[in-house]
Amino acid sequence: MINIVINGKPCDTISALDRGLHYGDGVFETLKVVRGHIMFLEQHLQRLQQGCERLRIPQPSMEALVQEANSLVNDEAKSVLKIIVTRGGGGRGYRLPDNARNNRIIIRYAFPGYPQTYYRQGVTLRICDQRLSANATLAGIKHLNRLEQILARSEWQDESIAEGLMMDQEDNIIEGTMSNLFLVNEDRLVTSDLKNCGVAGIIRQFVLDMAQEMGISHDITVVKKEDLLTAGEVFLTNSLIGIWPVTKLLHISTQKSSQIDYKVGPITGRLMQGLTREEARQEV
Amino acid sequence: MINIVINGKPCDTISALDRGLHYGDGVFETLKVVRGHIMFLEQHLQRLQQGCERLRIPQPSMEALVQEANSLVNDEAKSVLKIIVTRGGGGRGYRLPDNARNNRIIIRYAFPGYPQTYYRQGVTLRICDQRLSANATLAGIKHLNRLEQILARSEWQDESIAEGLMMDQEDNIIEGTMSNLFLVNEDRLVTSDLKNCGVAGIIRQFVLDMAQEMGISHDITVVKKEDLLTAGEVFLTNSLIGIWPVTKLLHISTQKSSQIDYKVGPITGRLMQGLTREEARQEV
Repeated sequence: MINIVINGKPCDTISALDRGLHYGDGVFETLKVVRGHIMFLEQHLQRLQQGCERLRIPQPSMEALVQEANSLVNDEAKSVLKIIVTRGGGGRGYRLPDNARNNRIIIRYAFPGYPQTYYRQGVTLRICDQRLSANATLAGIKHLNRLEQILARSEWQDESIAEGLMMDQEDNIIEGTMSNLFLVNEDRLVTSDLKNCGVAGIIRQFVLDMAQEMGISHDITVVKKEDLLTAGEVFLTNSLIGIWPVTKLLHISTQKSSQIDYKVGPITGRLMQGLTREEARQEV
Repeated sequence: MINIVINGKPCDTISALDRGLHYGDGVFETLKVVRGHIMFLEQHLQRLQQGCERLRIPQPSMEALVQEANSLVNDEAKSVLKIIVTRGGGGRGYRLPDNARNNRIIIRYAFPGYPQTYYRQGVTLRICDQRLSANATLAGIKHLNRLEQILARSEWQDESIAEGLMMDQEDNIIEGTMSNLFLVNEDRLVTSDLKNCGVAGIIRQFVLDMAQEMGISHDITVVKKEDLLTAGEVFLTNSLIGIWPVTKLLHISTQKSSQIDYKVGPITGRLMQGLTREEARQEV
């Protein structure tokens, strides 16, 4: 069952004049809920605030958001909350409305049925044709302009492929359609620089902080296809999946049959354990 | 008064699960209505179809769209229709829903109060800091991912500035935030190539076709700031404004006070007359 709260009230429709619909003029967060506990809530709300600030959307009340989010959670083992904040209604046209406002839309979904084997045996990854466009003013923000991700995700139907990597126009590998990418190269953790495109993931940041604490060095840098060829471990992160080890990468060269295999490596394992511990901690 | 028809029924709300809201997953058209006649309706619907095809959104019924659009128009001197077609509802996530569908949202607005002097004395134009990002798969489509235009339009409040030009990341001048750009250089009409970004405007195409008929040569090419320095005439087009001559361009160099003045030139004048004739023809 889906439940929706809009500006504090149960409701399943929004105004057809909302700028979220007309222009993708808003930001969103996708949160994992475990037995009534919203994981990394503070970090998600902080990113939401930063996104609003960068897009000059009036800040929603954090108190209201927390209350509304909690009103939707129940004691299910796992569920998903999506928080959308748009710039609200407003006249026709791109110009910001004179009366700054926003709309808060919070939706509870069932947790997706990701196979449990993904965590133990790893996932298969492909490389998408659809590119991410570079724009520093939008980079990092989890905004509502997501056509590039939709086109990328529409490239494959094969259920055995869990995710697709997206490159920018300069053949830099940036992230997955719904996840951030990490490599381990000679015991160093590597993830893509997101200064020109991509979404600055909450779990991506948590993994970077955790690596720091564990004494694992990391680089936030340009990642090329060649780095995938030499990587010892590869994994993906997002708020729902946590950490997925990657054990197979398809189409790495123009030869359609080309693929690379990876093992679920020790650094990936340590980080997965660390994330599990953190989630358990947040459940208390 | 605003009137809205959604999938054939008067209604002013859409589902909070619509992919138009969640991802900007849709296309739109903005149409000028003159005394009950929708200008360039066929061309707008054709572009809408092309946009749906490129984004793999199921084609809406053209018959239904025409009927719904006409149900909203009245005999006001001028009004605006906006047609939005989204990929409809669907589960959470970027993946295309299994059951392909769409939602048709048609809204009538009052016509914007553009000063009549804009047509006789021309408009003032500025150059925006916000860039357009390049992505050939989305270029030309009037889709619902419009954050770049919103950020660009938010750069100025000065009511004397009618429009802002946007460049891509390589300093090519592409278009205005809501209009296409034309220059006249040594009796040749010039407009920006839109293969990597921009919206392929209906009036832009009409002007190109009209120029052809009038024996005015044209180039669809890369436009740089330097071309604005040497241009004899400059004008903007969109479906609501028609053709606005540009008589002042601000901030052409890093010196904030820099500006160029243009005259309302003969080629602009001929094209404006041609468009007026065409609108009168469509009114019959």
